[in-house]
Amino acid sequence: MLTNRFEHPLNEKVRIYLRLEYLIRQMTHSSQLNDQWQHQIFFRALFDLLEILDQIQVKSELAKDLDKQRAKLKNWLNIDGVDQTALLAILDNLDMAHHRLIAANRLGQDIREDRFLSGIKQRFSIPGGNCSFDLPALHHWLHLPLAHKQSDLANWMKQLAELTEALNLWLRLTRESGHLQPQVARRGFFQHEAEDATLLRLDICPSYGVYPMISGHRNRFAIRFLPFDEGASIAEAIEFKLAIC
Amino acid sequence: MLTNRFEHPLNEKVRIYLRLEYLIRQMTHSSQLNDQWQHQIFFRALFDLLEILDQIQVKSELAKDLDKQRAKLKNWLNIDGVDQTALLAILDNLDMAHHRLIAANRLGQDIREDRFLSGIKQRFSIPGGNCSFDLPALHHWLHLPLAHKQSDLANWMKQLAELTEALNLWLRLTRESGHLQPQVARRGFFQHEAEDATLLRLDICPSYGVYPMISGHRNRFAIRFLPFDEGASIAEAIEFKLAIC
Repeated sequence: MLTNRFEHPLNEKVRIYLRLEYLIRQMTHSSQLNDQWQHQIFFRALFDLLEILDQIQVKSELAKDLDKQRAKLKNWLNIDGVDQTALLAILDNLDMAHHRLIAANRLGQDIREDRFLSGIKQRFSIPGGNCSFDLPALHHWLHLPLAHKQSDLANWMKQLAELTEALNLWLRLTRESGHLQPQVARRGFFQHEAEDATLLRLDICPSYGVYPMISGHRNRFAIRFLPFDEGASIAEAIEFKLAIC
Repeated sequence: MLTNRFEHPLNEKVRIYLRLEYLIRQMTHSSQLNDQWQHQIFFRALFDLLEILDQIQVKSELAKDLDKQRAKLKNWLNIDGVDQTALLAILDNLDMAHHRLIAANRLGQDIREDRFLSGIKQRFSIPGGNCSFDLPALHHWLHLPLAHKQSDLANWMKQLAELTEALNLWLRLTRESGHLQPQVARRGFFQHEAEDATLLRLDICPSYGVYPMISGHRNRFAIRFLPFDEGASIAEAIEFKLAIC
């Protein structure tokens, strides 16, 4: 069955983590430059990411969160029925990601200091502000050989390797901590206790023609399903799957 | 010979026209949605374009400029050696583009009033602000069948058809009004009179490793060629081609 996957963070920190992951995914995909305007996706995502890193102490927060996850997982050591080899491998990964993150420079520092990038960053916030006359240096760069450009993009991505590794690991373990369960919303509404949760994951069949508006915090949340087409009616009972992570 | 083409507007209005053309080119290309993140290019270009249209009376300015171009071209009627058939065809095109532009609604009005678009517009200015939890309606839309999405994008583009036609025609005639002439910059510098010009077009071979910083207005301009690589030296004489339009 075709489903749409929605995710919703239950605190501000996870909201930031999901946004960072989303930006890094855009950068990874567009760093191949196999479409005419992909550099726009890349640079915009990169500058958005730097802005987030400037506002929030992502490095220390993420290190703390990796630590918490490690502490939680250690409770499963030497418990019967728990795959100890897999558990030890994850704990190893957590140790390594934590170590590399802590040892890294200030996140994105080399990118901030890059002369080319800081020269073009400002103009990206002006509507239509990266024409050739706005950014002749970017225009020159765009005409460099593809391999040269790809290598530049790969180098900038590399500066974010520790962040990417730590973020992906934390999000993967968090996502795996919850399991999708069938649920039913009556008259487009569903609410539930969350018990110290951080993230909701929701699968719904697009044929209902609705999308979820979720509000809540770590202990309680509510989901209201809204019709995508204005004025359309919605099903009395909407079946969906929900994981509370 | 491989060349990089740079364009530089000599007044604020042409600056706006070039930005609008640039945004419309991005929208046209990305409206096919043949790459995973192209919708981002499309929506961002669309919202940038609306912002420009909100700030500047593009419709009346462009109509006046088409009129001026028509008046200028009419001077060539019944002049020996001028291809009258071609001239009449251009004058016809100008009449039609002018007529359609004037008869159009306020530019972009239907797009501004679109419930879906106005719902997602705000979040595009937040760094990383179009995750599924920020914009569940967009996330739902992204999972609609490709043909449905392409048709939505084509409809929004259609609202800008009169602007696009008028803009493209004015820019084409303006560009054609100047001819590329060989020039030489000494020690990276070149300056020239412009005589009521609106646009400079410059072709340069990328192997010089330089890009032009242009300043000036309709009567005079200066070009300084800067090395792309920090600290690199530049050629004593830089050959390039320049059209003053």
